Order: sequence, then structure tokens, then C-alpha cells
Amino acid sequence: MSKSIFYHAGCPVCVSAEHDIVNLVGIDNVEVVHIGEVRDRIEEAEKAGVKSVPALVTPQGNVLHINFGASISDVKG
Amino acid sequence: MSKSIFYHAGCPVCVSAEHDIVNLVGIDNVEVVHIGEVRDRIEEAEKAGVKSVPALVTPQGNVLHINFGASISDVKG
Repeated sequence: MSKSIFYHAGCPVCVSAEHDIVNLVGIDNVEVVHIGEVRDRIEEAEKAGVKSVPALVTPQGNVLHINFGASISDVKG
Repeated sequence: MSKSIFYHAGCPVCVSAEHDIVNLVGIDNVEVVHIGEVRDRIEEAEKAGVKSVPALVTPQGNVLHINFGASISDVKG
């Protein structure tokens, strides 16, 4: 995995964080996944260790939970 | 302000996040401030909107609270 993956659920906190992360990391270096819409990637996010969104999974596989928009269980519910 | 500022307090969560952020953003693009040691910058961090560390303040002045190491009040106490 060479790109970071930014998981979000479309909430205002997520959108704001997405803009900041894309500005910082560069649009070419991050894949943005809206797990509220692309629901079959929720399980992938959970396996990566994502507990809440927005979250950034680094190329090294570390999870950075950024601010707090929604818990994964809220997104699933 | 053209650099981001990463505020931390030396805790393991902070150190891990620092490595990730430096890898993602680039060492030349972020100033790292240990507010547990450089205590006269705690007020600056608070004014920027930092509620907990580790946190990244972007060049646009937005605050990204990353994971959760310690609240500012814990660092001050």
C-alpha cells in the first residue's frame, strides 16, 4: 500500500478534515473513501483498525483518528 | 504561517502520531513542539484551538486532533 486512505462518512467534521488532509498530504497521495456510501468498505476499514471517522490509514498501516465525526458503529447502524 | 505545527506532550500516542505525520507531510513542512517541555507555548496552542495532544495546526489555522494522548488541562496540571 503506497497511498494513505482517508475514510469518512460525509459529516461536516469529515469534510473539513478531508480538505485539510488533502492539502497537507497531496491529492495524489490519498484515496478518499466515503464509507457511508461505499458500504462494502466498512469491513475493510474496521480490519485496518478504524474506530471512528474521519480517519487516515497511512501507507505503513497506522491509523490516525482525526477529530471525531462518528463512530464506526454509528455508520453501520 | 506556511508550516503546520504539531503539538505533542511526549506520550507514546504522541510519538507514534508524530512519526506518521512527519512521514506524510514531510519534515520540512512541520514544526514539532513538545508543550510538555516548552511550556510557554501551551498558551499559543490553546489560542490556536488545541484541546488535546497530539494535534496538528495546519497552515490555514485549522486544528486536527489526532487520536488522543492527553488533554491540554492534563499537560498544564
